[in-house]
Amino acid sequence: MKSIAFSSGWLSLSLIILLTSVSAVPHNIPKLSVFDRTSLRDLSDTTPAFVWEDLETYFYNQTLDHFNYNPQSYAIFKQRYVINSKYWGGGNKSAPIFVYLGAEAPIDGDIQFTGFLPENAPNFKALIVYIEHRFYGQSVPFGPVKENQGYFSSAQAIADYAAVILYLKEKLSAHYSPVIVIGGSYGGMLASWFRLKYPHVALGALASSAPILYFDDIIPQNGYYSIVSKDFKEASESCYETIKQSWSVIDEVASQPNGLSTLSQRFNTCYPLSDSFELKDYLDGLYSRAAQYDRPPRYPVTVVCGGIDGAPNGTDILSRIFAGVVAATVNRSCYVNGHHNYSRDPYGDWDWQTCSEMVMPIGRGSNDTMFFAWPFNLTSFTEDCVRSFGVPPRPHWVTTYYGGHDIKAVLQRFASNIIFSNGLRDPYSCAGVLQDISESVVAVYTVNGSHCLDILPTNKSDPQWLTDQRNTEVKIIQGWIDQYYADLLSSSKH
Amino acid sequence: MKSIAFSSGWLSLSLIILLTSVSAVPHNIPKLSVFDRTSLRDLSDTTPAFVWEDLETYFYNQTLDHFNYNPQSYAIFKQRYVINSKYWGGGNKSAPIFVYLGAEAPIDGDIQFTGFLPENAPNFKALIVYIEHRFYGQSVPFGPVKENQGYFSSAQAIADYAAVILYLKEKLSAHYSPVIVIGGSYGGMLASWFRLKYPHVALGALASSAPILYFDDIIPQNGYYSIVSKDFKEASESCYETIKQSWSVIDEVASQPNGLSTLSQRFNTCYPLSDSFELKDYLDGLYSRAAQYDRPPRYPVTVVCGGIDGAPNGTDILSRIFAGVVAATVNRSCYVNGHHNYSRDPYGDWDWQTCSEMVMPIGRGSNDTMFFAWPFNLTSFTEDCVRSFGVPPRPHWVTTYYGGHDIKAVLQRFASNIIFSNGLRDPYSCAGVLQDISESVVAVYTVNGSHCLDILPTNKSDPQWLTDQRNTEVKIIQGWIDQYYADLLSSSKH
Repeated sequence: MKSIAFSSGWLSLSLIILLTSVSAVPHNIPKLSVFDRTSLRDLSDTTPAFVWEDLETYFYNQTLDHFNYNPQSYAIFKQRYVINSKYWGGGNKSAPIFVYLGAEAPIDGDIQFTGFLPENAPNFKALIVYIEHRFYGQSVPFGPVKENQGYFSSAQAIADYAAVILYLKEKLSAHYSPVIVIGGSYGGMLASWFRLKYPHVALGALASSAPILYFDDIIPQNGYYSIVSKDFKEASESCYETIKQSWSVIDEVASQPNGLSTLSQRFNTCYPLSDSFELKDYLDGLYSRAAQYDRPPRYPVTVVCGGIDGAPNGTDILSRIFAGVVAATVNRSCYVNGHHNYSRDPYGDWDWQTCSEMVMPIGRGSNDTMFFAWPFNLTSFTEDCVRSFGVPPRPHWVTTYYGGHDIKAVLQRFASNIIFSNGLRDPYSCAGVLQDISESVVAVYTVNGSHCLDILPTNKSDPQWLTDQRNTEVKIIQGWIDQYYADLLSSSKH
Repeated sequence: MKSIAFSSGWLSLSLIILLTSVSAVPHNIPKLSVFDRTSLRDLSDTTPAFVWEDLETYFYNQTLDHFNYNPQSYAIFKQRYVINSKYWGGGNKSAPIFVYLGAEAPIDGDIQFTGFLPENAPNFKALIVYIEHRFYGQSVPFGPVKENQGYFSSAQAIADYAAVILYLKEKLSAHYSPVIVIGGSYGGMLASWFRLKYPHVALGALASSAPILYFDDIIPQNGYYSIVSKDFKEASESCYETIKQSWSVIDEVASQPNGLSTLSQRFNTCYPLSDSFELKDYLDGLYSRAAQYDRPPRYPVTVVCGGIDGAPNGTDILSRIFAGVVAATVNRSCYVNGHHNYSRDPYGDWDWQTCSEMVMPIGRGSNDTMFFAWPFNLTSFTEDCVRSFGVPPRPHWVTTYYGGHDIKAVLQRFASNIIFSNGLRDPYSCAGVLQDISESVVAVYTVNGSHCLDILPTNKSDPQWLTDQRNTEVKIIQGWIDQYYADLLSSSKH
């Protein structure tokens, strides 16, 4: 594999940054999640397409370690799964099973905010099953997480899903029910990988906004921030320029006597800033999330730019930036919550995953996006992971186990029944599959869509292009199932 | 999954057998191996198709545990691989790579007795790589095997192969060289599973005599011994009848005063027999191997039956059976080597594999084969494994991870480029894929072939049907590679 090359121009600059103010800050990899878990406002307009009374919760006795035969491999933990059988046509009719593959959070939020399953289950007469990912929510193996953390990996997680699904098909006498796995973001990666690794368990996969190509050297590091920048530029050229210029202004103010105190005051921070990076990191996250979840009808990028551009003529850059922050957030008494911005994840455990196998080299140079430079450096990333967790990441494992390089060449005559859905405003779409790989491994994307938009609940205000995307997906899945039933019928005739 | 049902008629009989004389004997699962490792005579007529000087031996720093991130997962062991680059067209020409996947033995024997790779490499201009399976030969992780035995699994083994192949392609600048994996018997299972799990690493697989369906409840238990019986019946009806009647004769003699001593004398045993099962188990193994490796020009089944049938008129059953033993073996001063027939495997480690994940439920009832009853009983098998290794087997893991049930339905629209080759005289062919699954997942079998016959060295005396089988396989593989190059060319034009 090619080593990642930096242009020497900004390498020296970024090295200085890395070695000075920010050296203790973990590299900030944008969060993967179906919806923006940092802002409930993002989902305030959605309504679940089911009633809670239809859900039943169970716990499966899951094997801690599927791949080895050490005495501790046989340990059992309780894995939560939730079933909605209201619409199911039954196992005796081989009615379909929709399985939502949990990702890096408790399953509850996904149940509430994933519209695709309950909205389509009635027409498909499908059983709905939500399975929680090991080490999240109520599916954490006994004892302190640290003790068993080594078993917290994606290969184990999808093996868990296989075990639960096979168990359920047996228990429900649903031997011939076709299973469709559905997931978004990291869960979308899991869904596509599940179809590839367990075709005997799942007939097909809907992988929504799955950045399966953001590994190793498959795509350029700065893909993510290039799209964030493009989103802002398309929303407003002046907004984009203001943001682009703001970083050096912030640094300049910070370098003056009492500069940090000035910045703290101007941004109404909850705690005095201890360095300018704290503020920049906060803004970085705010812009990135706005782009990632830039969905109708609110379009957060437009909202932020509305704040920035809407300030009266003559307003200086810092005030414009602050106006953008205020526009993006609601009813806050203060902003920039101090050093805990540096903590990598609200749930903590995704940090472990990125520090073990989900090593996504997301970064940017000094002049290739609207942001300040923040290159991904594997060496310092590794050091940080070892400091945090005691073990180094395996940056090549995902491409070794799941592939990714030359994906069209590899899969065009292998595999079937995968939908890679994307919205091109989603910065993670740079690492999604955006071209059909074969007749049934297909890309379904929208130019104006955002992260996992297709699997969120439908809404009266949904634009036509979003409705079209969802209808296309449903039609494709229906085609897989029709084909499956036809095959079943023709084989039983022989 | 259905529980395995016994007809009650012979269940009671077999239970009595299990609970009396043989209760301490591990269930005897016929050995999987490309050639008969118990008898060098089997291969005395073969000539390696290469010179030893062309081989280079290397050791790869292999990861102990690919799937977890415990501190011990990162341990490194030396894995042996052997390269023959004499015929290779080079990485710059994207010339192919043939990779032989080692199985349950040191790699040396396979290098010597696998003809397919060196015989076809010149025409393909292929690099040849032999990779030894972890925990065999010189690829045993440090320290006493027992300590790391938990990491001795097929999923780890094929992940090893992926790592070595990707490393080699990088090292040899052979990024676009198509890789064909080849294996026989257990190694054939690994080859087919490797193509299914790592399509981004191997373009195709030749899986010779791979009994991938002998797991769980996919096929009847007695498939193996039914074919052994059929082979003998086809060779000679009288021979088959003599064998079928012999078991009760042996038991009858054994039950008489001094019966064991009589049997020991009549079979010229190396040590006095301690029970009749010792003799029966020896004969069982002898007949089974004869059938499994019933290959031209010698055809061991015919040889055994020649001994049994060739005795003068009036010879009693025991003497006929002994004449068969003598005919099958050469220059032995004694037979039936005492209790170490009960040890399960000459290499020991295959026992571990069958007691962890490779749980093949091979058995037979009281009247469904030419043998005495010897049903596979999962409960007693499990108890025996726990006694031997401290951990129970996971009898459903192979079908969970690799599939197997409804294989045609699952793979007919998924996967490509696998040859399942078989010889129908091989008792393991009952668990092989004998029907084309799709256009490029195909079955190539011969009616008169034996275990892994196609990948053994060619021989002047080879019958035409064997030459035809090999030519068919070569032509299919050539087709995959041609298609691959055409795809490569057409994608580079876009």
